[in-house]
Amino acid sequence: MTLWGKERDIDRTMLEFTVGDDYLLDQRLVKYDCLGSIAHAEMLCSIGALTQDESDQLVAGLQTIIELADKGEFPIQPSQEDCHTAIEDWLTRECGEVGKKIHLGRSRNDQVLTALRLYEKDALDKVAERLSGFREALARTIDKHGHVPLPGYTHMRRAMPTTIGTWLGAFHDAAKDDVRLVESARDLIDQSPLGTGAGFGITVFQPDRELTARKLGFARVQENPIYAQMSRGKFEATLLHVLGQIAFDLNRLASDLILFSTREYGFLGLPEEFCTGSSIMPQKQNPDVLELVRAYYHVVVGEELKLRGLIGNLTSGYHRDLQLMKAPVFKAFDVTGKCLAVMTAVIPRVIIDEEACAAAMSDELYATEEAYRLVQQGVPFRDAYRQVARKHRPDPERER
Amino acid sequence: MTLWGKERDIDRTMLEFTVGDDYLLDQRLVKYDCLGSIAHAEMLCSIGALTQDESDQLVAGLQTIIELADKGEFPIQPSQEDCHTAIEDWLTRECGEVGKKIHLGRSRNDQVLTALRLYEKDALDKVAERLSGFREALARTIDKHGHVPLPGYTHMRRAMPTTIGTWLGAFHDAAKDDVRLVESARDLIDQSPLGTGAGFGITVFQPDRELTARKLGFARVQENPIYAQMSRGKFEATLLHVLGQIAFDLNRLASDLILFSTREYGFLGLPEEFCTGSSIMPQKQNPDVLELVRAYYHVVVGEELKLRGLIGNLTSGYHRDLQLMKAPVFKAFDVTGKCLAVMTAVIPRVIIDEEACAAAMSDELYATEEAYRLVQQGVPFRDAYRQVARKHRPDPERER
Amino acid sequence: MTLWGKERDIDRTMLEFTVGDDYLLDQRLVKYDCLGSIAHAEMLCSIGALTQDESDQLVAGLQTIIELADKGEFPIQPSQEDCHTAIEDWLTRECGEVGKKIHLGRSRNDQVLTALRLYEKDALDKVAERLSGFREALARTIDKHGHVPLPGYTHMRRAMPTTIGTWLGAFHDAAKDDVRLVESARDLIDQSPLGTGAGFGITVFQPDRELTARKLGFARVQENPIYAQMSRGKFEATLLHVLGQIAFDLNRLASDLILFSTREYGFLGLPEEFCTGSSIMPQKQNPDVLELVRAYYHVVVGEELKLRGLIGNLTSGYHRDLQLMKAPVFKAFDVTGKCLAVMTAVIPRVIIDEEACAAAMSDELYATEEAYRLVQQGVPFRDAYRQVARKHRPDPERER
Amino acid sequence: MTLWGKERDIDRTMLEFTVGDDYLLDQRLVKYDCLGSIAHAEMLCSIGALTQDESDQLVAGLQTIIELADKGEFPIQPSQEDCHTAIEDWLTRECGEVGKKIHLGRSRNDQVLTALRLYEKDALDKVAERLSGFREALARTIDKHGHVPLPGYTHMRRAMPTTIGTWLGAFHDAAKDDVRLVESARDLIDQSPLGTGAGFGITVFQPDRELTARKLGFARVQENPIYAQMSRGKFEATLLHVLGQIAFDLNRLASDLILFSTREYGFLGLPEEFCTGSSIMPQKQNPDVLELVRAYYHVVVGEELKLRGLIGNLTSGYHRDLQLMKAPVFKAFDVTGKCLAVMTAVIPRVIIDEEACAAAMSDELYATEEAYRLVQQGVPFRDAYRQVARKHRPDPERER
Repeated sequence: MTLWGKERDIDRTMLEFTVGDDYLLDQRLVKYDCLGSIAHAEMLCSIGALTQDESDQLVAGLQTIIELADKGEFPIQPSQEDCHTAIEDWLTRECGEVGKKIHLGRSRNDQVLTALRLYEKDALDKVAERLSGFREALARTIDKHGHVPLPGYTHMRRAMPTTIGTWLGAFHDAAKDDVRLVESARDLIDQSPLGTGAGFGITVFQPDRELTARKLGFARVQENPIYAQMSRGKFEATLLHVLGQIAFDLNRLASDLILFSTREYGFLGLPEEFCTGSSIMPQKQNPDVLELVRAYYHVVVGEELKLRGLIGNLTSGYHRDLQLMKAPVFKAFDVTGKCLAVMTAVIPRVIIDEEACAAAMSDELYATEEAYRLVQQGVPFRDAYRQVARKHRPDPERER
Repeated sequence: MTLWGKERDIDRTMLEFTVGDDYLLDQRLVKYDCLGSIAHAEMLCSIGALTQDESDQLVAGLQTIIELADKGEFPIQPSQEDCHTAIEDWLTRECGEVGKKIHLGRSRNDQVLTALRLYEKDALDKVAERLSGFREALARTIDKHGHVPLPGYTHMRRAMPTTIGTWLGAFHDAAKDDVRLVESARDLIDQSPLGTGAGFGITVFQPDRELTARKLGFARVQENPIYAQMSRGKFEATLLHVLGQIAFDLNRLASDLILFSTREYGFLGLPEEFCTGSSIMPQKQNPDVLELVRAYYHVVVGEELKLRGLIGNLTSGYHRDLQLMKAPVFKAFDVTGKCLAVMTAVIPRVIIDEEACAAAMSDELYATEEAYRLVQQGVPFRDAYRQVARKHRPDPERER
Repeated sequence: MTLWGKERDIDRTMLEFTVGDDYLLDQRLVKYDCLGSIAHAEMLCSIGALTQDESDQLVAGLQTIIELADKGEFPIQPSQEDCHTAIEDWLTRECGEVGKKIHLGRSRNDQVLTALRLYEKDALDKVAERLSGFREALARTIDKHGHVPLPGYTHMRRAMPTTIGTWLGAFHDAAKDDVRLVESARDLIDQSPLGTGAGFGITVFQPDRELTARKLGFARVQENPIYAQMSRGKFEATLLHVLGQIAFDLNRLASDLILFSTREYGFLGLPEEFCTGSSIMPQKQNPDVLELVRAYYHVVVGEELKLRGLIGNLTSGYHRDLQLMKAPVFKAFDVTGKCLAVMTAVIPRVIIDEEACAAAMSDELYATEEAYRLVQQGVPFRDAYRQVARKHRPDPERER
Repeated sequence: MTLWGKERDIDRTMLEFTVGDDYLLDQRLVKYDCLGSIAHAEMLCSIGALTQDESDQLVAGLQTIIELADKGEFPIQPSQEDCHTAIEDWLTRECGEVGKKIHLGRSRNDQVLTALRLYEKDALDKVAERLSGFREALARTIDKHGHVPLPGYTHMRRAMPTTIGTWLGAFHDAAKDDVRLVESARDLIDQSPLGTGAGFGITVFQPDRELTARKLGFARVQENPIYAQMSRGKFEATLLHVLGQIAFDLNRLASDLILFSTREYGFLGLPEEFCTGSSIMPQKQNPDVLELVRAYYHVVVGEELKLRGLIGNLTSGYHRDLQLMKAPVFKAFDVTGKCLAVMTAVIPRVIIDEEACAAAMSDELYATEEAYRLVQQGVPFRDAYRQVARKHRPDPERER
């Protein structure tokens, strides 16, 4: 039964349509919703809206739910719409009358905001950890193979000499900036929406918003209740942006690895156990892992775009449209997390063919150096450039 | 076991990563893959690459799989990667040696293209049917309430008089154009890729591509094998575009219904059983159904965008990136289908408040008519316009 | 002065903001708007709303404007907002009183729809022509170099043998399907919106919509006035989709050309006069032309996306938001047209290195053939595949 | 003439195609490129690669160019490709031989990165200022009208009571978070790329990167040259994201204002001089200004998406594709800046109809309060909710 349903019936098809996958998606919010509810119950007790005993009962019940959920034993029924209803239902069933009191002074609107934000802070922390792991994997590989020379390319043409160390170092630095992005996104969302109710605050009962914010570990209270609702989707756009930036770095790295491990470039190889084969061509060893990492960038960007579209041209106040932002957020965290993990595993296993790298250090890579030597002899740079250019560029006549 | 795996081991994490949700998503392709395989087996028989007996065995086996899949009894294991492997595995296990012969003269690349295209043609037909149902629902409502007057708005300001009939008629006509779009998309993809192998054709054995195309009901053969691969993702972008156009019409209709059913406009109502409630505000009856229809437009657009990103900046020939286009295609068909079904159910149940509509037909709606009456009396239009404008526009002094 | 402005003043900054670049963008609509206005004037005459003499005066005036615009001598002032106002202004100034009569029975809303649609039909025809030219360039190159062998790649690894002819043939076939897409888009938009007024039809005066449609060469009348407005943006989304599909094919072709012309692949070259250089590296010859063609795909997709966002979550009836769809449409046509022209020029000038191609036809490309030969000797395909696989795949021990 | 062109000819059409609008777009980079060049020249002098006299000559020349550009008297020719070439050309022409020395130890790749980043830092500062102005306008309006009651809506249905102050306060707080976003984006990009050359560092001459960074006011040096190139497009994606977040807030505010100023809501009005009219309907006063602000959100998102697409699936090292990111960046800054300015002007001029607001404070808005009063009397919340619900919800029988 829905929270609002007692007195009326909703058309079955309509309910199924509106619930969608929420009863499944919400599984990962159960824990965070319980944490929010514990803080809320304790706050209600502190302002005298619940007795100590009632609060204790609710807290104990909510902790039991967290344990059940951990073991995968807290299913949410489609008819319950979401985790919030499933939790209130459970409390009412298991703890009796007091279950009907937990929702005083809040709305699902601030409840889901709170649970999501707690989830997101945790998820960001995990991303930051994975970024660390990724950076370490890069650092170790740089330590081992950093000295190996590598042609530097612009426009996919040989440009100037570089090394494995400089190349992988770029991703090391990129990931460092990504950590910075993760931190500022975390900072942005680190404000407690709990107590903003349906988006217009709570009347009659004055929730102690500082208290719940403190209990939940939020850095500050998000004061304005309309802004709390308005930040739904907006904050998530920033999260998805940050995940998209990480996914971009991995897209670039995967693209490099795929190219450099072709037979034609041959600078690198992937161990056989990281490759997949073909159903028809017996010889194939394909870098599917890298191709998927490359591709997931577009999935994250697409999820962000959904969200950007969803929240546009709407007026203030909650609209059900916003429900559809949950899936993109979960998807983007999952995908980025997996890609980081996979690349952290791949990097140290990349096989570097030092000979092939060395053999590729052809003359043209040193043309700029050649011009610079002329500059050292007093030739102005642009003249030196032209002198060297005449030497390196193919004679137009020679062309077929 | 994978098709290519026998002789080697792939890292477990890597396999899980590359398989992703494919083993689940592919469930809906089992039937279509079997249909493709039946045509392929019969063709192999016709060119002498299989005996009649072998072909019969395979066809019987494949028909059994279709029946199993219909009953939900043909699970695909993650270790099998996809439905293609699961099917070859099953055939080899159940039909013996002949199972190892089914893959002759094809690749998973053309197999999946074929299965997807058969699925897509079916799915488009279902969309066309739903568009018909939607148009009928509109037509019936227009028959009943079409005469009711309604203010026409531009810039959300009252503009000129219209009717419920003209308003809903717009969506009726829009859906007619959508049918046209569905048909031309179906036409575009109605070409058989079977026999293009991994994307470079088949050597030694010459598959009879006309035969398999005919058996599978394709309008024509997609001759060029590289184009067959290149059209993967490209064709799907067109499908998603078409679904996006349908979703757009529904987005617009839902937006109208939400606005017109506000207390402030009050032209329409939704029956209570189509509304949802609030967890905190006892009075609420919310049009969540419509909000979600509105929102799904952005989901379809987002899925299309993923696909457009995925296929960009890649070179010719299959890349594993393309695997990630399956989920967007399935999602877009599911979502658009559901939204059409829901709106088809909603339209005839919309409650039209004739009195409120009539009451809203205020003077300003007839200002253009007023000007036209002056024109009939010989005043040039622009002068008539200005004459009426002076009358209708608020005196600037009056403003607060 | 604006059409509506006489009696009032609008804030200068606000006017500048709302006009934006329209007065510049509209330059290319002048001709089409005049054509629409000619048909409109003649129709007004036919229904007795203008005398023959008045109609002749207007038609002559409009033809003069077309000539002026052709010579670049019909500037639109920012204060005039758009071409529609500039044209009515000119007519009133040059033809006198009758200029004030031209706007009877229409609105800028149907006027701009008409002008845009005429422009778009023309622009689509030009795209179709360019697609022809592009296909001819491909055909000629295939005739000359089609026989040259080329390794076929999947996952950027050598897969099976192919030829220059099959490779370029893929784009030839792709462009054929693009022509089909162009045609069905043209077909979709080939309906006359003229006479739908502000989006709710015309009262008092009944415009003869069949007549204007016929005069303007539209295949049919777009009956429903609300749908006429609703199709604004929607139809353009289909146009941009089609342009995006063309841009995609060019993106793929450019990606291939860039890769195949690297030193490492070396199958192709670009003539020096199609390459650009570096400011620092004297040796560089870069395929900037191809890189930009590749990149413009994303520009077209981005423009489409703007449009998809702009039109979402809006209610029926014109909103000024729709003004912002003009720039994306013009941009997408310009960019796609230029890319087609450039690639049509590039293709015949590509230098094919037959020796390098031949040298790249390594053994592994024939592994499938090898398996097929075993099948001919009676080995089931999967067994043959495994036998060949053992031979081709590197011994795990051998790995570094 | 291009920097690389002396010794060869490039096809005219190809040059035009590759240059595109760059010669126009670059106009706004001239100043920043000169600033970068001044720092570079002084650094070259400090490491002995230029004499003091040479450096002084270059610095004086560059300062002249800045002055010329300020007066709009430094045109860039299409044949010069970009501002970098135009500047080197000018120096060589006006200062003689020393002009040929300015490019020593750098590439256009790091030059454009530097100029863009300086421009972007300035542009972000301007955005931050405009956000301040916008917040002040909101604060003043809240001071004046904050007390006026306003119905709070969820799902566009009356939910709970709020005020003009809380409503506008939401945007005030949103803009505060936007400032935070601007600051962290500025922080991210505040690293000097100068001295990374073409993307692989500089050999022979060791540029003093700390010195140029300090002279240009960068917070730190971007050490890794490959990362410097890789951050092109990536950093800009973050900028566009931030601008998109601001545009989102304005989109929401504009949507509210448009709705609240409809005849049907009537809470607000816009002064006539901020409204536009219709070409056909004499009575119309349309909020085009707000509609365009709403629409520009999608333009910013579309520009970001272009960029996200452009940089995907590419390998490390500069590609000409990246040139196409300039226009999106400029466009997004321009559009967001204008929208902020316009809304800052609009907000204080919004006419608030206190009577209409008061009249709209209907009973249903107090249903939650009603339930809370029952809770105060000891009824558990969910029971109180149901009791009130029975009273407020329409009797199903009553429905038509």
